[in-house]
Amino acid sequence: MTVNVGVIGTGMIGQDHIRRITQVLTGGAVVAVNDVDEARAGQVAAGLPGASIHATAQDLIADDHVDAILVASWGPAHEEQVVAAIAAGKPVFCEKPLAPTSAACLRIMDAEMAAGRRLVQVGFMRRYDAGYRAMKAVLDDGGIGAPLLMHCAHRNPSVPPYGFTTDMIISDSSVHEIDIVRWLFGEEIAAATVLTPGRSRQAGADLQDPLILLLEMASGVLVDDELFVNARYGYDVRGEIVGEAGTVALADVGEVTVRAANRHSGRVPVDWRDRFIRAYDAELQDWLNAVAAGTSAGPTSWDGYAAAAVTDAALEALRAGQRTAVTMAERPDFYAKAQ
Amino acid sequence: MTVNVGVIGTGMIGQDHIRRITQVLTGGAVVAVNDVDEARAGQVAAGLPGASIHATAQDLIADDHVDAILVASWGPAHEEQVVAAIAAGKPVFCEKPLAPTSAACLRIMDAEMAAGRRLVQVGFMRRYDAGYRAMKAVLDDGGIGAPLLMHCAHRNPSVPPYGFTTDMIISDSSVHEIDIVRWLFGEEIAAATVLTPGRSRQAGADLQDPLILLLEMASGVLVDDELFVNARYGYDVRGEIVGEAGTVALADVGEVTVRAANRHSGRVPVDWRDRFIRAYDAELQDWLNAVAAGTSAGPTSWDGYAAAAVTDAALEALRAGQRTAVTMAERPDFYAKAQ
Amino acid sequence: MTVNVGVIGTGMIGQDHIRRITQVLTGGAVVAVNDVDEARAGQVAAGLPGASIHATAQDLIADDHVDAILVASWGPAHEEQVVAAIAAGKPVFCEKPLAPTSAACLRIMDAEMAAGRRLVQVGFMRRYDAGYRAMKAVLDDGGIGAPLLMHCAHRNPSVPPYGFTTDMIISDSSVHEIDIVRWLFGEEIAAATVLTPGRSRQAGADLQDPLILLLEMASGVLVDDELFVNARYGYDVRGEIVGEAGTVALADVGEVTVRAANRHSGRVPVDWRDRFIRAYDAELQDWLNAVAAGTSAGPTSWDGYAAAAVTDAALEALRAGQRTAVTMAERPDFYAKAQ
Amino acid sequence: MTVNVGVIGTGMIGQDHIRRITQVLTGGAVVAVNDVDEARAGQVAAGLPGASIHATAQDLIADDHVDAILVASWGPAHEEQVVAAIAAGKPVFCEKPLAPTSAACLRIMDAEMAAGRRLVQVGFMRRYDAGYRAMKAVLDDGGIGAPLLMHCAHRNPSVPPYGFTTDMIISDSSVHEIDIVRWLFGEEIAAATVLTPGRSRQAGADLQDPLILLLEMASGVLVDDELFVNARYGYDVRGEIVGEAGTVALADVGEVTVRAANRHSGRVPVDWRDRFIRAYDAELQDWLNAVAAGTSAGPTSWDGYAAAAVTDAALEALRAGQRTAVTMAERPDFYAKAQ
Repeated sequence: MTVNVGVIGTGMIGQDHIRRITQVLTGGAVVAVNDVDEARAGQVAAGLPGASIHATAQDLIADDHVDAILVASWGPAHEEQVVAAIAAGKPVFCEKPLAPTSAACLRIMDAEMAAGRRLVQVGFMRRYDAGYRAMKAVLDDGGIGAPLLMHCAHRNPSVPPYGFTTDMIISDSSVHEIDIVRWLFGEEIAAATVLTPGRSRQAGADLQDPLILLLEMASGVLVDDELFVNARYGYDVRGEIVGEAGTVALADVGEVTVRAANRHSGRVPVDWRDRFIRAYDAELQDWLNAVAAGTSAGPTSWDGYAAAAVTDAALEALRAGQRTAVTMAERPDFYAKAQ
Repeated sequence: MTVNVGVIGTGMIGQDHIRRITQVLTGGAVVAVNDVDEARAGQVAAGLPGASIHATAQDLIADDHVDAILVASWGPAHEEQVVAAIAAGKPVFCEKPLAPTSAACLRIMDAEMAAGRRLVQVGFMRRYDAGYRAMKAVLDDGGIGAPLLMHCAHRNPSVPPYGFTTDMIISDSSVHEIDIVRWLFGEEIAAATVLTPGRSRQAGADLQDPLILLLEMASGVLVDDELFVNARYGYDVRGEIVGEAGTVALADVGEVTVRAANRHSGRVPVDWRDRFIRAYDAELQDWLNAVAAGTSAGPTSWDGYAAAAVTDAALEALRAGQRTAVTMAERPDFYAKAQ
Repeated sequence: MTVNVGVIGTGMIGQDHIRRITQVLTGGAVVAVNDVDEARAGQVAAGLPGASIHATAQDLIADDHVDAILVASWGPAHEEQVVAAIAAGKPVFCEKPLAPTSAACLRIMDAEMAAGRRLVQVGFMRRYDAGYRAMKAVLDDGGIGAPLLMHCAHRNPSVPPYGFTTDMIISDSSVHEIDIVRWLFGEEIAAATVLTPGRSRQAGADLQDPLILLLEMASGVLVDDELFVNARYGYDVRGEIVGEAGTVALADVGEVTVRAANRHSGRVPVDWRDRFIRAYDAELQDWLNAVAAGTSAGPTSWDGYAAAAVTDAALEALRAGQRTAVTMAERPDFYAKAQ
Repeated sequence: MTVNVGVIGTGMIGQDHIRRITQVLTGGAVVAVNDVDEARAGQVAAGLPGASIHATAQDLIADDHVDAILVASWGPAHEEQVVAAIAAGKPVFCEKPLAPTSAACLRIMDAEMAAGRRLVQVGFMRRYDAGYRAMKAVLDDGGIGAPLLMHCAHRNPSVPPYGFTTDMIISDSSVHEIDIVRWLFGEEIAAATVLTPGRSRQAGADLQDPLILLLEMASGVLVDDELFVNARYGYDVRGEIVGEAGTVALADVGEVTVRAANRHSGRVPVDWRDRFIRAYDAELQDWLNAVAAGTSAGPTSWDGYAAAAVTDAALEALRAGQRTAVTMAERPDFYAKAQ
């Protein structure tokens, strides 16, 4: 069975997912597209034989040929689109953030609970990365004992000199660690603190870069996360969990070792795509498989909500310059952990 | 467009390719199967809705619903099946070896040349491995200067205690290095020598394990290849090219580093599947893409022939205990290097 | 010329330095010993032909056969002994801490300045470690641009279940990072904060282990230092400086890589001696060489004082649970940086 | 007790050992020097207060102030000098080769046996390298099972364009692996073969560089040794022993990892001094300690002889282009393995 996907939002990430469904994964086809920029939607559809173009997201969702929805529009539009997909009873894959505010995320949860079954998967692709999965396997197998600390770094080579704000380091970059530590440790985040070291002169004038985000897990595990979006030398995501009996760390990603000019060396990824492309593939394949099987998989609306709530606390911590507790609703049974 | 594949041979490797086409790759479907063991073919077909079972390979090849053939039968049957696919004008992916003798390979080449276009891809999947591809990129970019030597090791944890012969170390194991060095250096192998160190007591009584195979490239590059099929500790494929200005080596494959009990460590693959599964995926996707596009890709019949000719020389070198020149036909223009 | 050394304090560390001078280094001899435990001093002297035993540290310092003093007594005794050595005009190597309080350190500085020349070297041996020296060389050569952050970890396999207090994690363990970051960055530490993650159940009942110590350098460089004295898996000191153009990190220390049982692995040091023995050797050789040459080398009284001042702030930060500014005297010209 | 050393040969290596005894090691002093170039001997002695200059090696050996002899003259002079030291009953450290011919080595052995006690230590310093020692410890502890193979590489960045011959790659470079494999495996070498790959254009016109030397241990363990004296990229000595249950390999030597310009990298040593300086220190300290204790240590005359015998076979194998058995005398009980 082929899952007929309708894609809302045909910008960079939307196009990448279309390429993925069409040229890489199995079991899916893109049969409809929509974008606020109709011309762009038309150009994308031109490369998809038989795909229809819809003037509105609502129309696309209502299209009977569309089995499932992929939301890759900008964040503020997510709530309405995801809720509409739920109302139509159609599974929906929503790129992060699920919605820009935790209140909006709660409304999505309400809609999904009213529908009576899980229809939403949120695009936290790191959960599908071979490195994090191996890390979680070591942790869950007891190989390092009970966890106590985690050290993370999230380094981008650069961001545009204008338009990228310090808040976005929290909301766009750190959200990946916020989700992954919840998944790794299987618990919520209780509080956040943001430290501001001396800033890089490579950063735009108004950008506090790098930052250190401290996350306190409910159990007391402490996570420190270096966020550095002008690291220049490459795209480098690092992580080490320290447990009572040992540690587990993400290994360097590299195919070959070169010995030349008195150095032995391996490559550092050039960007997030280079580093995580397989995780994106696996995430979307998992979604297609679940849709085809009539089940659900991956990060839920609750995960989207939790990430939003922690992001809110971190932004407040940055603003206030002090530790900020995370305010969260109670987890509904509906979103109890899957086995 | 979906490529409708007919699979000849539904043993372990055939089933794995069926899983791959059905559950992993895009653009292909398995519509017909055949096996000398009809019961096994039936069991496999039962998991493939709509797939037909053919009593003979010839029937499968003749089936109008079949666009392309995947040959995963045992080696002695390859020639007849591949030639029949060529005669039917259908693209064929043939697992290694293309045929058990170089004479049979030459007959396949003749059939393909008579057909006037490349229809055969041989299953040398290492060419699709990210490690070897990165190695070739470094070499081709001049990063280590002109190549002089290559050191290889090909270690399997174990082979069955009975039935696996010393000759099979050459024909089944070393054939991977035989093909990959031809591809890496873009030239033929001129001679082979086999060295016999003290044998492991883990090896079956009649097995000379490990072996060292020496391959002399036409240009003088010397390759030494440790072949060790009872290495116990894991599946480990290693390679380092030494050039006039530096070296490039396959890096360890590992997602995480664990620190425990006074060691820092990473994992070694458990078997060939673990190590090369992505290469198998990429190889077959490349074939499906080429079939869909009406073109050809990957290792050719000539590559299958050359591997057979070098294997012959290596087996003779093992038997005779001395350096043996490789005897090869001249390369037809038809098989001139691509691009 | 042989430097005739008098050793005050013949406990574990004193004996180790005696072994070093006697069996490893060149240019020194131990000619006199003193210990509060006269029996122990006698036992040690028995292994040193010709060495005299002195009833008091003062007697030893006054001994005409003694050229230079090595203070390895307990911390509270250091001030009186170091000041006495200065008064006698004899060079003195003092194990860390220079003195338990910053006030006492200031009095030592006053005595040394009154003497008119540098006579004191403090035992911060990490400055002599090949790893930290290579790190500083990369930093100073501009290889990673201006520094912004440093991540440290200082892990001991275990401490005694009783008697080792949380304060000692600061005063005994973190003092090494406190000194090394001052040396690496060539600047003072402005403030300290201590974070208290969930504690390891391997730690004694009253021990908050691990801790995270945050150090703010005067320039804004932020250092985070994981201190974990019951890490079980080994003795592991890690460090990575993040600069505007790259990073430099201490590499794993290991002589060989073992492949066995599906792991490739290297060893982690078992204890501080294993990890830093060469640094201790180099530190004391540097002292002997400087004494023989009539010059001075290595960490000064000012460095001892600065470490004490930062330790005071860190202990206060631990107690108060908040960021604490470091209070320090102005650096006298006498202790201006050597070029 | 200080060992008073007389040094014969004050060229580069002699001066380096003098520096070592004088500035690095403990328990030794250089009290006399001799060189065929008297002016050079004089210059060296000028830096050694109290050291005498002798017109001949015989005079130096006879000097009553000299306890022990260090022979760092050129190879052809070794036999006469070592035999004279033995005749004088004085311990002698002789740089490699013990003598240029195996016949000369046998005469030294005869002299030493006639003297009735071991007086000679040969300068095979790799036995004192931390890497090889860790490798031997893993092997001896059974960590990789019984050994079957060893892969070695010995790469120098360059040799002078004139004057360095292909024979010298065997006699000067491979002699280090010849000794170390005898030590690692505790057995003799039975045969040698030399392979000649395509040569590097960086090599002088008459130099066959690189070479592959194959050594067959008496037990059947097979060693392949890549010898490459114009490797350009650095000084790199590699080794991996393959056993029945695993492998052990020399690790990269590097203090720090740098991340910059999309690479993570560590340094490769620049020359043999950089790589092995600690081994030289340890070797000579062991000699001084043994002399002071009236015992002997390290590689013996038998080891010097065995290396010469294998070198002879390897040179013959290079000349003849075929496998050449090693011809060796029987090992006298006098040189039975220590302890």
